[in-house]
Amino acid sequence: MAIEKTPLAAPLAMNGSAHLAELDASRLVVTLAKTLQPLPENPHFGEIKTDHMLMATYEPKTGWSAPEIKPYGPISLDPASSCFQYCPNVFEGMKAYRGPNGEPRLFRPKLNMERLARSAERVALPPFDTNAVLTLIKRLVAIDARWIPTKPGHSLYIRPTIIGTRAALGVAASDSAMLYVIMTPTGPYFNTANAKGIPLLAVGTTVRSWPGGTGGHKLGLNYAPGFLPQRLAAEQGYSQILWLLGDDHKITEAGAMNFFAVVARDDGDLDVVTPPLDGTILPGLTRLSCLALLDAHTARRTVLPGLRPALRLHTHERALTMPELAAWSAEGKLLEAFCVGTAVAVAPVGRIGWEGKDLVMPSEETGLGEVGKALLERVLDIQTGRVEWEGWSVVCEV
Amino acid sequence: MAIEKTPLAAPLAMNGSAHLAELDASRLVVTLAKTLQPLPENPHFGEIKTDHMLMATYEPKTGWSAPEIKPYGPISLDPASSCFQYCPNVFEGMKAYRGPNGEPRLFRPKLNMERLARSAERVALPPFDTNAVLTLIKRLVAIDARWIPTKPGHSLYIRPTIIGTRAALGVAASDSAMLYVIMTPTGPYFNTANAKGIPLLAVGTTVRSWPGGTGGHKLGLNYAPGFLPQRLAAEQGYSQILWLLGDDHKITEAGAMNFFAVVARDDGDLDVVTPPLDGTILPGLTRLSCLALLDAHTARRTVLPGLRPALRLHTHERALTMPELAAWSAEGKLLEAFCVGTAVAVAPVGRIGWEGKDLVMPSEETGLGEVGKALLERVLDIQTGRVEWEGWSVVCEV
Repeated sequence: MAIEKTPLAAPLAMNGSAHLAELDASRLVVTLAKTLQPLPENPHFGEIKTDHMLMATYEPKTGWSAPEIKPYGPISLDPASSCFQYCPNVFEGMKAYRGPNGEPRLFRPKLNMERLARSAERVALPPFDTNAVLTLIKRLVAIDARWIPTKPGHSLYIRPTIIGTRAALGVAASDSAMLYVIMTPTGPYFNTANAKGIPLLAVGTTVRSWPGGTGGHKLGLNYAPGFLPQRLAAEQGYSQILWLLGDDHKITEAGAMNFFAVVARDDGDLDVVTPPLDGTILPGLTRLSCLALLDAHTARRTVLPGLRPALRLHTHERALTMPELAAWSAEGKLLEAFCVGTAVAVAPVGRIGWEGKDLVMPSEETGLGEVGKALLERVLDIQTGRVEWEGWSVVCEV
Repeated sequence: MAIEKTPLAAPLAMNGSAHLAELDASRLVVTLAKTLQPLPENPHFGEIKTDHMLMATYEPKTGWSAPEIKPYGPISLDPASSCFQYCPNVFEGMKAYRGPNGEPRLFRPKLNMERLARSAERVALPPFDTNAVLTLIKRLVAIDARWIPTKPGHSLYIRPTIIGTRAALGVAASDSAMLYVIMTPTGPYFNTANAKGIPLLAVGTTVRSWPGGTGGHKLGLNYAPGFLPQRLAAEQGYSQILWLLGDDHKITEAGAMNFFAVVARDDGDLDVVTPPLDGTILPGLTRLSCLALLDAHTARRTVLPGLRPALRLHTHERALTMPELAAWSAEGKLLEAFCVGTAVAVAPVGRIGWEGKDLVMPSEETGLGEVGKALLERVLDIQTGRVEWEGWSVVCEV
């Protein structure tokens, strides 16, 4: 497969453990694939990967290796490796979009890098230079830029991953690691997204995260415990789980997304409520961005598409429970419920199965309401560079 | 490396998904290593692996592959594999011991197989025939029998592992899997075991497991969240964490071991207390075996070594809190505290750091007390076949 090897710089001189090599983008070695794959027509999320991948490894005596971009292919590891046995594995979800002039763009990528560093620290993986990783990701996106779809709603999903590779069975932090980035072209994540709402099953018997747990970090290990409940929910006709916590049925996350409810106020304004970053939910970038855009609309710093300029949206990051949601619904005050995340952007909730009944959301048949629709449109506008907003969209220059 | 290929049977005929192949020990293919490694003198736990490994793979269209025993070596996987991304990875810890006539022996291995099956189900991995896996493990142990150490307290640690290998990024159960078994010779796990007590740091701010979580299953993902707290504890001079849960400082596990306290009663009997199997702690085989042996002593079905035959030991599987332990300690009633697990067998607790102070255990300087010592001796007697007890020790005939 390999045709081009371009060592950009010699490895740093090592002098014992005192001089561990940093992850250094200037040492990148690029090996291009000899044969490029045909581009898929309508790829399922995450199944087809692009032609190349980025990789670097960390060893306790030498530090970070020279990073490589090379043809996509399998990785080979000792079966005792920590990633298989104890799961110190972290990842990020990012997307590359095509801008108005066809240029590749990323969305607030520094925030992904900062979260990745926090995730790595949480499971005691070695630290790395976040700027270097971002520089390398931009290079990878540029090399595989032909994979960024042009269809609206389609994009190139980017999956930075760090796994522990210590090849010993003692239960201890992994002192070696592998960082890699793979990419997959994607259409809308849910078939129902932007159309009818997603049916969620509220589950509190299996608990995704807990105070003092790891739900606030993007760790691979947060996801497998959801597989079985997710399968059981699917058998009942629900496409995702709405994870509850505690005796008060507190809403945490929906599937792997953040949850929002829009509630009518007596003064004609709207309350937009989402659970707080208390360590049990992921600090989503789309969540953060939606909250900022709603606040900007209310402050009249922008007008969100389709919303009255005078409409005031009061954002609340606060505990939100199923009984509250049910009460708002019964009173006719619950106007919208939607989920946000990198994969979906903004997706409507259809109904929520809870205690044997379905709580039907206004978005069941019609899809996103006015607030969700405004956010989806504006987020996509910014992500694809059609609207400039506070430097959130970053052109992938290399 | 490969010199011998012995296909024992042809693959089953497939007829769509209705006829998925079972894991079938009779289809085992053995490929022996050409060169055998020298045996290590004093191996660290889990670092040196034996010459061979067992492997089988599962694919959704065909079921289980013919199992292979082959030279130990790396495994090669797609970087998108579920095991790296979402961690549906489960394992077991078992040991092979040498019997009085040098024969390899396993300790209650069916219980490990049953727990492995429950772990796999919890993270939605494909099911497998537990008898087949045990038959294959016995064959692997027999092939690498020269690795079973003869030194007292030493044994061959066996690590059955199943990992999800679905190579797609959508968050869903892994419909393909790899089962493998690797082995590593081991001496005593802690340098301090059977000598001075292990210093534990009681931690309740980081929480290992919770109601509705996965702490009651042997999942790889239960371990990485402990790496950082473990490192911080080590910096303070504690070798393991005593994991607490909730406002009442409930004791769950110690490191990756089960916790026991021995308390003097006014009537001269002893209470032996260990946390219950409420889903937040691992149902340890050593825990189960210790409880059974203590009950057998009290019922005069056996006499544990060094204990008075008339000594009555009242076992209690019930919630146990740090304040309780502290109160017993202050009253002079706390006679012993020890940890049990496959790796350690029975190991004394030295002190427990809690709320800025050290709670010093009676076993701090002297090591195991009479109950812990009796259990360690009897468990090792049974494991090594010196004492027959209820068929717990199984000769590895193949």
